[in-house]
Amino acid sequence: MSHKDRQFRPVTVPSVTLSGFWGQWQDAVSETTAAILLDRCEAAGMIQAIDVDQPSPGVVIPIAPWGGSTQMFWDSDLGKSIETIAFSLYRKPNPELEARADAIIDLYEKLQDKDGYLNAWFQRVQPDRRWTNLRDHHELYCAGHLMEAAVAYYQATGKRKLLDIMCRYADYMLTVFGEGEGQMPGYDGHEEIELALVKLARVTGEPKYLDLSKFFVDQRGTEPHFFTEEAQRDGRDASDFHQRTYEYGQAHQPVRDQRKVVGHAVRAMYLYSGMADIATEYRDDSLTEALEGLWDDLTTKQMYITGGIGPAASNEGFTDYFDLPNDTAYAETCASVGLVFWANRMLGRGPNRRYADVMEQALYNGALPGLALDGKTFFYENPLESTGKHHRWTWHHCPCCPPNIARLVTSIGSYMYAVADDEIAIHLYGESTMTCELANGSEVTLKQKTEYPWDGAIGLEIGLGSPARFALSLRIPEWAEGATLAVNGTPVDVSSTLIDGYARLDRDWQDGDRVELVLPLVLRPQFANPRVRQDAGRVALMRGPLVYCVETTDNGDDLNAIVVPKTIPEGSTVMLPELNGAVAIDLTLQREDAGRWGDALYRSRPADRSDARVRLIPYHLWDNRTPGEMLVWMQAD
Amino acid sequence: MSHKDRQFRPVTVPSVTLSGFWGQWQDAVSETTAAILLDRCEAAGMIQAIDVDQPSPGVVIPIAPWGGSTQMFWDSDLGKSIETIAFSLYRKPNPELEARADAIIDLYEKLQDKDGYLNAWFQRVQPDRRWTNLRDHHELYCAGHLMEAAVAYYQATGKRKLLDIMCRYADYMLTVFGEGEGQMPGYDGHEEIELALVKLARVTGEPKYLDLSKFFVDQRGTEPHFFTEEAQRDGRDASDFHQRTYEYGQAHQPVRDQRKVVGHAVRAMYLYSGMADIATEYRDDSLTEALEGLWDDLTTKQMYITGGIGPAASNEGFTDYFDLPNDTAYAETCASVGLVFWANRMLGRGPNRRYADVMEQALYNGALPGLALDGKTFFYENPLESTGKHHRWTWHHCPCCPPNIARLVTSIGSYMYAVADDEIAIHLYGESTMTCELANGSEVTLKQKTEYPWDGAIGLEIGLGSPARFALSLRIPEWAEGATLAVNGTPVDVSSTLIDGYARLDRDWQDGDRVELVLPLVLRPQFANPRVRQDAGRVALMRGPLVYCVETTDNGDDLNAIVVPKTIPEGSTVMLPELNGAVAIDLTLQREDAGRWGDALYRSRPADRSDARVRLIPYHLWDNRTPGEMLVWMQAD
Repeated sequence: MSHKDRQFRPVTVPSVTLSGFWGQWQDAVSETTAAILLDRCEAAGMIQAIDVDQPSPGVVIPIAPWGGSTQMFWDSDLGKSIETIAFSLYRKPNPELEARADAIIDLYEKLQDKDGYLNAWFQRVQPDRRWTNLRDHHELYCAGHLMEAAVAYYQATGKRKLLDIMCRYADYMLTVFGEGEGQMPGYDGHEEIELALVKLARVTGEPKYLDLSKFFVDQRGTEPHFFTEEAQRDGRDASDFHQRTYEYGQAHQPVRDQRKVVGHAVRAMYLYSGMADIATEYRDDSLTEALEGLWDDLTTKQMYITGGIGPAASNEGFTDYFDLPNDTAYAETCASVGLVFWANRMLGRGPNRRYADVMEQALYNGALPGLALDGKTFFYENPLESTGKHHRWTWHHCPCCPPNIARLVTSIGSYMYAVADDEIAIHLYGESTMTCELANGSEVTLKQKTEYPWDGAIGLEIGLGSPARFALSLRIPEWAEGATLAVNGTPVDVSSTLIDGYARLDRDWQDGDRVELVLPLVLRPQFANPRVRQDAGRVALMRGPLVYCVETTDNGDDLNAIVVPKTIPEGSTVMLPELNGAVAIDLTLQREDAGRWGDALYRSRPADRSDARVRLIPYHLWDNRTPGEMLVWMQAD
Repeated sequence: MSHKDRQFRPVTVPSVTLSGFWGQWQDAVSETTAAILLDRCEAAGMIQAIDVDQPSPGVVIPIAPWGGSTQMFWDSDLGKSIETIAFSLYRKPNPELEARADAIIDLYEKLQDKDGYLNAWFQRVQPDRRWTNLRDHHELYCAGHLMEAAVAYYQATGKRKLLDIMCRYADYMLTVFGEGEGQMPGYDGHEEIELALVKLARVTGEPKYLDLSKFFVDQRGTEPHFFTEEAQRDGRDASDFHQRTYEYGQAHQPVRDQRKVVGHAVRAMYLYSGMADIATEYRDDSLTEALEGLWDDLTTKQMYITGGIGPAASNEGFTDYFDLPNDTAYAETCASVGLVFWANRMLGRGPNRRYADVMEQALYNGALPGLALDGKTFFYENPLESTGKHHRWTWHHCPCCPPNIARLVTSIGSYMYAVADDEIAIHLYGESTMTCELANGSEVTLKQKTEYPWDGAIGLEIGLGSPARFALSLRIPEWAEGATLAVNGTPVDVSSTLIDGYARLDRDWQDGDRVELVLPLVLRPQFANPRVRQDAGRVALMRGPLVYCVETTDNGDDLNAIVVPKTIPEGSTVMLPELNGAVAIDLTLQREDAGRWGDALYRSRPADRSDARVRLIPYHLWDNRTPGEMLVWMQAD
């Protein structure tokens, strides 16, 4: 079987038990965030919105300039919250939370139309507007999130009610969408349904849902343009809409022709995720070719070092190549969550660190900052520089990010491990136990012992009922210069095993076999391509997968006066209990002396510099202590 | 007489004839801009708006979130346009333009109410709203601009009609405003009337107009707060307004208590200008003390190196100390024009280069960029960095900047020279001839021969009917290290003559006496206070009063890859005919090699650098050739 014909699928969430770093984060979500999400959805009126025994709430959030209300997406918020609860229930039973989720599912059951349609807004607020504006109104997007919730809840609890509801809805969609007489050859302005249908197909084993997903993918951006015809049918001027370009929803050309990442960042990530799933399931090389071009475009021209993407607030998305402003970065939490989704699905056709390295980068530095350490507050935007006014909020009129980062954290196990026939790939490291069954019937247990990402030593213990042959592929991140590997104490030459950045150990394994991997974690400078004007003359510091930053609480104000010398001095690591045992780094850099500068605003002589002790902390943990300035890209000498 | 008891007043505009640098700019305005202003005011509907024989245009520009329409300020646009025409007529008779101005003045005469009131909006669109909302509606602001026009037009043409109209209006104001029974103890939300009344007083010799100006200055920000009481009287919630703070219009505290420059930048500059006039006219030390504090606050914490002020678009004004973003700088042309006004008036109590240096800096680099070389297009915002999308426009819904820079250019002679009893101060250099009469009756002619600002050699020839004793004070800019001075060929030790940065030559002068001043113009680096985070690690280059910049048309793209070495290399000056003979500077700097960087967005090694020939041009001339990127603050090695 050729390299690209493999089909790696993530292991299910229940197959992995986390402790260590991710275990702590999962506890925060399970014990705190999950309930908060429901509380805040309820406070916003979302339960009333789906309860047919209560009066319709009407328009609670006014119609915005783009022609809709964020209230139209309430189903998606409830969907992602239920999904988070489902994942949380794996970690820790919580009868109260489960009962609340069951109650919501009961309401959805009563709300669902006889024909299968299900949407709080278009059944209760604007019932005459069903399927009239796919471009702007997020109907299929909402459906997709409820489908993802249904799959997760079924896997977590064995309860089929929501899954059945969503299968009925999907079956109804199969009658509505298509190229047949009286059908709509359309697709949603905000992608999501594509990847959701793949999950539904995988859990139900129904290929018809895969086919519908592929239909949405194939139709997108084709001519005659669906959004134009839809608008004309609806009596709207097709050119008069808020974002004025179909690039906003990646519907400007057929997806296989797309090579440039454009438009709304979350939409783009969800589309590419769906495309990658379809490429894997159908072994569709034409999609893979487009995806690889888009991947290059994003990661070599449009991505923050944090894995944040979409620099502009105006379109919540992409602008020009190499335009990566730090202080005004939008870099929505959801967009980095979406990048993790996409990267993970790019691994469907085989392990490749090109994707997995970015998945890890976006996970730790782009997505995770969205959640406070206590699981109670959330970032929507993720700037790389702050003058001290940017803080996590408790809720937002468009609360998409909180449940998105929460469901990612609670399902992180399925991003760590993937399985294909007789191969296991480990994409991400972290203390955990994973169980899976291979095609040959062997049940494998992998125990990962590590303090990663704080320490680079990773021990794996293999549990097997009986000896078995399979390949174990371990990602060796590109940054891990000098990585070492040993099997049962015998060193293995990493470079000789390396395929696409993974050490591939294809052998007969015995119960109790041990693999030791060491990924050296050293502080390393990162410089940006000179075309990134905002980072010119600046340097960021990383250690392993983590971007580090400086904060006022450790370093005082005027962080831009810090200068990193050409040779990074030896630093010392410090464990910070108040940040859940995070590893900070103390080192001596230089600092311009603002105090002795004098009164002049400008002068002919640069500021004097002197040595200054500086503390760096992981970027994802900023704004968890006393508020103040924050800076990632520091002056480089 | 003590130093601070002197009263320097600018010479009148007709007393100075310009050639050289400013002569060219005045030609552009007289021959092109002046007519364009009227054309565009007419096209916008402003003539119809004041013509009682035509139907009222109604609300042409919709009411904005701040509760008014920019159409409310149309009188100010017409006022500044007439003022520009008046100043242009000194330079060059233009019967056609004069006839158009006369026609507008006739319309205003017919429009004026019997009681003296005059305002296009509140007589023709909302007649029931007169004097109901001084905070937001700019009635006195509009009046002020018409007064300035009246003074200029009278001085230019000898025609009194507009002057008489505005005196009638001012006389009516004297009945409306005051602390007497039935009078309003108010003042305008947008300052302007204050400085206009001083001009009216000076040209008419009527102290009552000075007193009214002082009344407005004294009332501002006092308690009980006029804006609050006014709102309550008008049935409005006094706290519910767009900017939510009286700081926006510098009405948050009595002006004598103010030490921090806040709010809308143009409003602040116009207020301080009026305060400085009143301080001079009344020898009011309490105002001077506030003004000196405000001056320090602005120039040491809140001013771009261009003399641009007001970094934020949201309030068209000031934000935090040391917050000076370059690419998003608002730095409205009008605000720098206003800073020139204020600085000039700070010289009323005696020459001091502390004010005059900033006046020159803001004039050349903050205000002048507002006008294209051909006088046809205009900048509103003046960023110090552009990715190539910022260009001068032909018109704006709030066209305040075009006539503001035009009237400054055409009246620049009065900013160059000031006279007090037996003293003449030269604040600005430029080829010109000035005539004035001293208190002792001597008529003095000063001929200035120079190619300044391109060359630093300045020759002065004194013309006198008979010998006379007076002091001639010549500004020695702080940047002019090594300046030399000679009288009739005999060197004078500059430092021994220096008072507050002016070389004071107090002697008996003869007809034909010659003074030679040389201000060395060398390229000098400028670094910002380390607290200006946006300029950290960056350097700007100035030559004499001019800020220089790099543009794509000379230097290709990716201007942020240019690195200025620690020691500025010797450059060569180049005269550019396409920029009216401007002096560019060619020199060898360094440049990061974006071409050989490779595909990675980030990497551990900084970019390679190599020597690169770079051309710098004066910042005020950017965007006059092929459009592209522009950058002032370059990477410093």
